[in-house]
Order: sequence, then C-alpha cells, then structure tokens
Amino acid sequence: MEISSLQELYVEQLKDLYDAEHQIIKALPKMIDKAESEDLKDALNEHLEVTKQHANRIERVFSDMGGKAKAEKCKGMQGVIAEGDDLIGDIDDPNVRDAAIIASAQRVEHYEMAGYGTARTYATQLGEDEAADLLQQTLDEEKEADKKLTELASEVNQEAAEGVEQEEA
Amino acid sequence: MEISSLQELYVEQLKDLYDAEHQIIKALPKMIDKAESEDLKDALNEHLEVTKQHANRIERVFSDMGGKAKAEKCKGMQGVIAEGDDLIGDIDDPNVRDAAIIASAQRVEHYEMAGYGTARTYATQLGEDEAADLLQQTLDEEKEADKKLTELASEVNQEAAEGVEQEEA
Repeated sequence: MEISSLQELYVEQLKDLYDAEHQIIKALPKMIDKAESEDLKDALNEHLEVTKQHANRIERVFSDMGGKAKAEKCKGMQGVIAEGDDLIGDIDDPNVRDAAIIASAQRVEHYEMAGYGTARTYATQLGEDEAADLLQQTLDEEKEADKKLTELASEVNQEAAEGVEQEEA
Repeated sequence: MEISSLQELYVEQLKDLYDAEHQIIKALPKMIDKAESEDLKDALNEHLEVTKQHANRIERVFSDMGGKAKAEKCKGMQGVIAEGDDLIGDIDDPNVRDAAIIASAQRVEHYEMAGYGTARTYATQLGEDEAADLLQQTLDEEKEADKKLTELASEVNQEAAEGVEQEEA
C-alpha cells in the first residue's frame, strides 16, 4: 500500500503495533507455561493483562480517528517471537530456560518501546494530543515491564549460573 | 542445539548478535541510498562504521574465550529488517520515507539494546569482566545512536508533516 503522508505512516505504525500486541497476547501464555520461577510467572501474567489494555488503547486511538482498529502483519514481532520459541525449545534446565524467557521477553519489550516511541512522536507532530497521551502511557508501561524483567534477571540468572558451578564442582 | 548452562546461553546470545550485526552491515547501505536528508545519510553512514566495530568486538569476545566468532541466524533482526524494507518500499515522498527509515532504524537499535543488555548481564554473572566491558561499550553506543535518531526524527518528521499541510492548503 502506497504511503504518501506522515498521517498515513502514523496509521501504518498503529496497525503494526496492533498486530504486534495480538501476537504477544498469543505468545505469553506459552512462555508462562514454560517458566519455572513463580516471580517470573507472575510478572508475565501481569504483563499479559497490561498487553490486553495496550491493544484496547490502540482501538481507542482508531475510534477517536473515526475508524475501526486494523492490524497489519508485524514481521518484526513475528521474527522476535519465532526466535524466542526456538531458543526456549532448546533448553531443558528450568533455571537456564527462565533466563532465556527473560531474554526473549526483553526483546519483545524493546520492539514495542521503539514502535510506541515512533507512534507517540508522530501523534504529537500531527497534533493528535489525546492519542499521544495514550501511546505515551503504553510506552511508559513497556519501559516499566522491561525494568521489572531486568530486576528478575539478576535473581534468575544467578540461579542458572550457580547450576553451572554445581555441575563443575 | 541443546543449551544446558548460562555459559552456553551466553555463547548463543553472542552468535545471535554477531549475525544481527552482519545483517545490519548489509542493510544499512540500502537505507543510506534511499535517505533524502543529508543529516540522516551522515548519521546512518557513521552508524555503519560503528556497527563494523561492534562485530569486531564480538570477535574479540570469542577470541578471548579461545574460539572463533560464529553466527547463528538471528530471526528477530531478519523480521525487523524485512519489515523496514517493506515499509520503505511503499513510500515515494522523500520526507515521509526519511521518517520511515528512522522508525525502522530505531527498531533495529532497540533489538540490539535488548540483545547487548542481556549478553552484558550474562558476562558479568559469569565473571567475564573484560567481555562485559566490551559489550557495555557497544550497548552505550547503540543507545547513543538511538538518541541521535530521535533528535533527527523531530527535524525530519516536521518536514514530512509540513508536506501534508502544503498538500492540504
């Protein structure tokens, strides 16, 4: 589809993010299922609920523009999730697998941070202030989720690293 | 390949990033070619040189571990770059296309920030302090590149947004 204005590029970004959110909503339950740490399970479960709200916010942005939310296949998220699936499938040790789940989830978060940062900037530039606020809220929550995963990583990785030491001892 | 320790997961992350860097080295010249703004061309050219150094740093990390750098197909970066290619190919207007190039480049940067953040944390946890320093340097440079793109975006998007106003006037 030919894109000829910043407005059209903005709508394209929203469609991409709307699809990305739905891919995440589908992928997260599988990650939760494979996670060992209860803290990690809780964090991912909480993020699943937040992700549903993010999809709803995009619906509101579309609805405020007088339309219905549309999705366009987000190849970036597809690649990130496929890579995470492959990696997690290669790991039997539960602590090492938890570390890999966090690594994969942080790649997901970072994709979204880039996407929402872009969409929020376009909304501001186009004078869509309410949409900019909604997108900023989501961006803040993605950053918060990423920060929480970083904190969890130090706990989970330590267990994975200790596993190695035990094996070597 | 079965991964059974944090050490092996760390090596897997390095292989993923090594392949990601090579995908970027291949993709950047095409983006530079399609960019209109001289400032954007300069920023991407500079980032191409920095990206080559990042690949070299991964080679040093492998060499310090007594091995040769290996790559493993990075599906995440593959998806991010394919999506950017599709998007940029849909745009004839040079200012709008520049905005899309920045959006795509920032998704690339964010993928790398997540990847290097993870690899640096593993290196620290495994006591690989020199590697952790090298990976932190790259992480800092990726963040710097992302910041520079955000600054450029406000200039480029403004031109794209003004293009719309002129058309509508």
